[in-house]
Amino acid sequence: MSFNTYGHLFRVTTWGESHGPALGATVDGCPPGVPLDEAAIQVWLDKRKPGQNKYTTQRREADEVEILSGVYEGQTTGTPIQLMIRNTDQRSKDYGDIAEKFRPGHADITYWQKYGIRDPRGGGRSSARETAARVAAGGVARAALAELAPGMRILGYMVQMGPHRADPARYDWDQVAQNPFWTPDAQAADDWAAYLDELRKSGDSVGAMIECRISGAAPGLGAPIYGKLDTDLAAAMMSINAVKGVEIGEGMAAASLTGSENADEISMGANGPEYGTNHAGGILGGISTGQDIVVRFAVKPTSSILTTRQTITKAGDPAEIITKGRHDPCVGIRAVPVAEAMAAAVMLDHVLLHRGQVGDGPRGRIG
Amino acid sequence: MSFNTYGHLFRVTTWGESHGPALGATVDGCPPGVPLDEAAIQVWLDKRKPGQNKYTTQRREADEVEILSGVYEGQTTGTPIQLMIRNTDQRSKDYGDIAEKFRPGHADITYWQKYGIRDPRGGGRSSARETAARVAAGGVARAALAELAPGMRILGYMVQMGPHRADPARYDWDQVAQNPFWTPDAQAADDWAAYLDELRKSGDSVGAMIECRISGAAPGLGAPIYGKLDTDLAAAMMSINAVKGVEIGEGMAAASLTGSENADEISMGANGPEYGTNHAGGILGGISTGQDIVVRFAVKPTSSILTTRQTITKAGDPAEIITKGRHDPCVGIRAVPVAEAMAAAVMLDHVLLHRGQVGDGPRGRIG
Amino acid sequence: MSFNTYGHLFRVTTWGESHGPALGATVDGCPPGVPLDEAAIQVWLDKRKPGQNKYTTQRREADEVEILSGVYEGQTTGTPIQLMIRNTDQRSKDYGDIAEKFRPGHADITYWQKYGIRDPRGGGRSSARETAARVAAGGVARAALAELAPGMRILGYMVQMGPHRADPARYDWDQVAQNPFWTPDAQAADDWAAYLDELRKSGDSVGAMIECRISGAAPGLGAPIYGKLDTDLAAAMMSINAVKGVEIGEGMAAASLTGSENADEISMGANGPEYGTNHAGGILGGISTGQDIVVRFAVKPTSSILTTRQTITKAGDPAEIITKGRHDPCVGIRAVPVAEAMAAAVMLDHVLLHRGQVGDGPRGRIG
Amino acid sequence: MSFNTYGHLFRVTTWGESHGPALGATVDGCPPGVPLDEAAIQVWLDKRKPGQNKYTTQRREADEVEILSGVYEGQTTGTPIQLMIRNTDQRSKDYGDIAEKFRPGHADITYWQKYGIRDPRGGGRSSARETAARVAAGGVARAALAELAPGMRILGYMVQMGPHRADPARYDWDQVAQNPFWTPDAQAADDWAAYLDELRKSGDSVGAMIECRISGAAPGLGAPIYGKLDTDLAAAMMSINAVKGVEIGEGMAAASLTGSENADEISMGANGPEYGTNHAGGILGGISTGQDIVVRFAVKPTSSILTTRQTITKAGDPAEIITKGRHDPCVGIRAVPVAEAMAAAVMLDHVLLHRGQVGDGPRGRIG
Repeated sequence: MSFNTYGHLFRVTTWGESHGPALGATVDGCPPGVPLDEAAIQVWLDKRKPGQNKYTTQRREADEVEILSGVYEGQTTGTPIQLMIRNTDQRSKDYGDIAEKFRPGHADITYWQKYGIRDPRGGGRSSARETAARVAAGGVARAALAELAPGMRILGYMVQMGPHRADPARYDWDQVAQNPFWTPDAQAADDWAAYLDELRKSGDSVGAMIECRISGAAPGLGAPIYGKLDTDLAAAMMSINAVKGVEIGEGMAAASLTGSENADEISMGANGPEYGTNHAGGILGGISTGQDIVVRFAVKPTSSILTTRQTITKAGDPAEIITKGRHDPCVGIRAVPVAEAMAAAVMLDHVLLHRGQVGDGPRGRIG
Repeated sequence: MSFNTYGHLFRVTTWGESHGPALGATVDGCPPGVPLDEAAIQVWLDKRKPGQNKYTTQRREADEVEILSGVYEGQTTGTPIQLMIRNTDQRSKDYGDIAEKFRPGHADITYWQKYGIRDPRGGGRSSARETAARVAAGGVARAALAELAPGMRILGYMVQMGPHRADPARYDWDQVAQNPFWTPDAQAADDWAAYLDELRKSGDSVGAMIECRISGAAPGLGAPIYGKLDTDLAAAMMSINAVKGVEIGEGMAAASLTGSENADEISMGANGPEYGTNHAGGILGGISTGQDIVVRFAVKPTSSILTTRQTITKAGDPAEIITKGRHDPCVGIRAVPVAEAMAAAVMLDHVLLHRGQVGDGPRGRIG
Repeated sequence: MSFNTYGHLFRVTTWGESHGPALGATVDGCPPGVPLDEAAIQVWLDKRKPGQNKYTTQRREADEVEILSGVYEGQTTGTPIQLMIRNTDQRSKDYGDIAEKFRPGHADITYWQKYGIRDPRGGGRSSARETAARVAAGGVARAALAELAPGMRILGYMVQMGPHRADPARYDWDQVAQNPFWTPDAQAADDWAAYLDELRKSGDSVGAMIECRISGAAPGLGAPIYGKLDTDLAAAMMSINAVKGVEIGEGMAAASLTGSENADEISMGANGPEYGTNHAGGILGGISTGQDIVVRFAVKPTSSILTTRQTITKAGDPAEIITKGRHDPCVGIRAVPVAEAMAAAVMLDHVLLHRGQVGDGPRGRIG
Repeated sequence: MSFNTYGHLFRVTTWGESHGPALGATVDGCPPGVPLDEAAIQVWLDKRKPGQNKYTTQRREADEVEILSGVYEGQTTGTPIQLMIRNTDQRSKDYGDIAEKFRPGHADITYWQKYGIRDPRGGGRSSARETAARVAAGGVARAALAELAPGMRILGYMVQMGPHRADPARYDWDQVAQNPFWTPDAQAADDWAAYLDELRKSGDSVGAMIECRISGAAPGLGAPIYGKLDTDLAAAMMSINAVKGVEIGEGMAAASLTGSENADEISMGANGPEYGTNHAGGILGGISTGQDIVVRFAVKPTSSILTTRQTITKAGDPAEIITKGRHDPCVGIRAVPVAEAMAAAVMLDHVLLHRGQVGDGPRGRIG
């Protein structure tokens, strides 16, 4: 019911505004006995941290996480884990113009219309800064998965920026950590760097497409009908700022396929069923097949740009707006670690749910 | 928490298997005093009913809804509304082969792996027949919206079948009810009819893309972060059988756009803010802008086809499978009324949520 | 969020009015593979069934349950179980006067004030008939507990009627099924029978106190703070019609005790910790100790009595009211099987929750 | 689903341990535009603060609340409000013995059995210190009620300590703030002071009974069946540490009454229905009548006493235990502001729920 909470058994409530004193995540439902300290979470926050290269916002935030509860002597206790990140760089003077004018394509106007009040400093609650809290919570989920599903791996990476799409034929997973775009296609990384340099000069921004791959998930995770693994992953990704579309496996392209093209044929392998292809993206009927789970989403370009746009003021008067300040030309870059965090939370949630409803491991044997 | 329930304040729990005695929906949270009878619901069920033309399954079901509770003298009372639909045509002999072999691309195998038991008759709970219950519940949501948001209109229509896409330049909303595909593009309807005739002869099936448009929604509906209107719509559509991707507004195409292309400029109209374009699909920051809300999703082709496919048996032995019986060559057709029902439920839910949290109407004035 | 649903992982939504066509329960979250058929549920419904002796309402209802979904070949499938009970004896003519006048002590007036509409036939949704659905759902919970917690026993019994309290010194558990009041004190049963005969002649009704004892629960069930086992049991019992107070262990009497009197001393037994006394009622910090869990509640006397009472009409005019028709002089009698059903649902829920969050069995060893 | 969250639309998640760096409450669902600052919350925390007189723990905590999010320029924004209270007095050396031995009557043993790990410093999460977070959240609820239900008043007070019960004939509401026990009976305050002095000398503790009275609630708040106002109040109070019983109106005494004694007769007053008596405690069928809502609960004596008790160690060996350190001889005293806070949260929640489901105000008119 809470608008600021996700998850069923593993529940995360994020809180905080971009220019308030702090933001964070209240994590409830983490199993007891999971080794956890701040360093284990910080590693993921550092991956998302702004100002690391010229392609992300120059806002400088230490983004240091403090664990305020739920951990005792290096282990989770099963009680709520409070993660707090202090805001240290709050140059809100950059945002003065925004308090009275609405940025086209931004949540300014709808927050105002809904609530009649909003914190205009840097977008307040609608700022992408909220995703730092998600990444911290994702660190907790990762730590718990390491105990409960040790074979599971979660990897996010960029597959498209503006009109330029990465080529799967060139994918090399070792490349992902080697370029500022988290892409497995080194050639694409070079192309995007050149493209983004041009774009920055023109004061514009651009969209992107991110893919997240979960390998090593046991078959049987997820649930039918309204608790489908793909539904929960779609909702998780769609809740990230600026995301406008989500796909599982073939995604929107499934509309173009015939049944004989789309159905993944099944054979018997040494460790259970195997599939010739993975059009399904690792999920059938909302339940994992044991194949890689593949989720993909599009991030729209940020609306905070240096290009002049027509808008109105609170008073309803016409106005022009240019958004100065520190903004990412491609917010999709920093969505990569956020996607991983959301995927980790959803997967842990379904590991716990499955254990609760069905017990440890899949129930139905094949072969 | 329930895997068979959706909604926050307006909550729907569907129940029932394709070949059990009945299926239905338990609807909780409908406001009191809404005029409602069985006829008001039946009109939507008739729209979805199988066997209406040669493009949908020949299973003959009356799909007659009974209201078992929650309505007194033609008005809702605020208590749970139980909607029951008897299954009348349960020719389960058609499905014998499926009990032992797994259909590629079907939830047979994952249900078995998860639960160790399943009702194999016609897919049991994973059957598209479950969507009849959604459509019935959607009828209740429509009736309540007629009272609480009388200007709101919800229209679903098909925009792509296989490789053939409808052309917005030819859209005529009056056409939607005139062809078996619920498409506003009469030319596309003709093309798809010819295409589908060919496909049926080959025993194959095909995917489709559906769009749903909600017009007349007040600005301010929805909620930030994890209760976003687009998140809830995405989850609602992704929960429909065979859906593999969901888009709001520009959707996946937003990855290709620049910020100056994507942001919808704002001007002041007679009745409030107006937007030059609608890349956002009527939602900013999870909250409605007052423009048309546009959600689109892809339905994969049904996996029950007459083409021989390789699979395995429960015993793990290799096998070939052909799915005889009554199946839709394009299940996407019948997804249209289901999409409308889900959209109606989500919109009513957010009307109630907004009223609960903020009060009647938007709070923030412009102009 | 649903006002008609209880439970976390094992969720029950009841629906239906006393004089509509049917009522029932939608049960979601029952684990798969549990042996279940209608007979296993009917045995509990028969225990609650009205008209069995002269002390309960003479309304004649077969109260036959139909399982409409979620069970295949005698086993639960993990999908929602729909339980329907047809109303067969709907002599609503008995209730004519109630439509216009409000019964003192009854929910007539508050339903009307809240909703502006209500089903006046026999109380509609506020009728104790709703508890038949709970008992049916409790039968499902019992069946699942038999698999997951085979040593657990749940027994409800009456401990007080009006001013007459049963004496624990006389308790004989074998007596519970031997008298119409489900009491372990045979002497009390005789006293109450005489008392109730007098009361019926005067057209009055009386309150009662029920206790429910859960033995064989493993230590470690429950959860801290807001998901406490005692909180959930209290909420479950308080939700039963006419219940006005709930106690765990010492209950309200704990206010009178000193710390040295109240704390149950601990020693080490062959199978783990043992306690010298059970003031705690088997729960510490919201988590089961392994002792008997003891919950007790008071049921107020029914407000439908033959004694003339002062009231008002819908129009606000003063009026006198006598409630004719078929009513229980002591509704507490039939609350006994309802209490057992609620206890079974809560215990199963916490067995599943514990398994989900912590895994099978308690984690911390002693000795 | 969260074990650390309560509420439906107004949701509070508390977090933190007694001897960690901080504790607090994440408050979601507060309406926008409510005037709020730290001072408005601090006033309630000061009421609960330990060490104020000789009858409460001598632990010295500033209990200063910081608002970290959700408030902008003195008004709530509709986004989550994070309330943090630093722990400043963490003399955990007092608790050494408790890490290895289990206190009889304390949650030590069940936390250990459930989780296999716990924070033993001062009870960790099971400490009554958690209630500071509730009181802070209650301050937010009070502020919102002042806007949405300005006529509502919430007053908690003690009505019994050990064997000594206050006498309603002596009640004077102005006395409540004049004595350390928050009781309206000045004579009882004197008696309890003398009694408690004796008790402290003997190193023992004692239970208490608290009543909370909500006046000025509109009729129509609450919901039938499982979201009853009395159910939610009972669950809220039962979730407070050490509470073992909860009553509404007549409570457990309702078991002793006849229907003609118990039913509150109705007449028509100038402002709507009036009731001759209030056996119902202001709630019928789970919905408020407009009378005072009266909830009462018993707090058991704290188990941390200086009296020697028999127990066991983690290793299962017999042991004796005396709990030194700073403990309240009557924890019930500090439960008074906690009860008020829980009542405020429940009432605000139901004000919001009613508005969401039914709209502003009651729907059904009388007269």
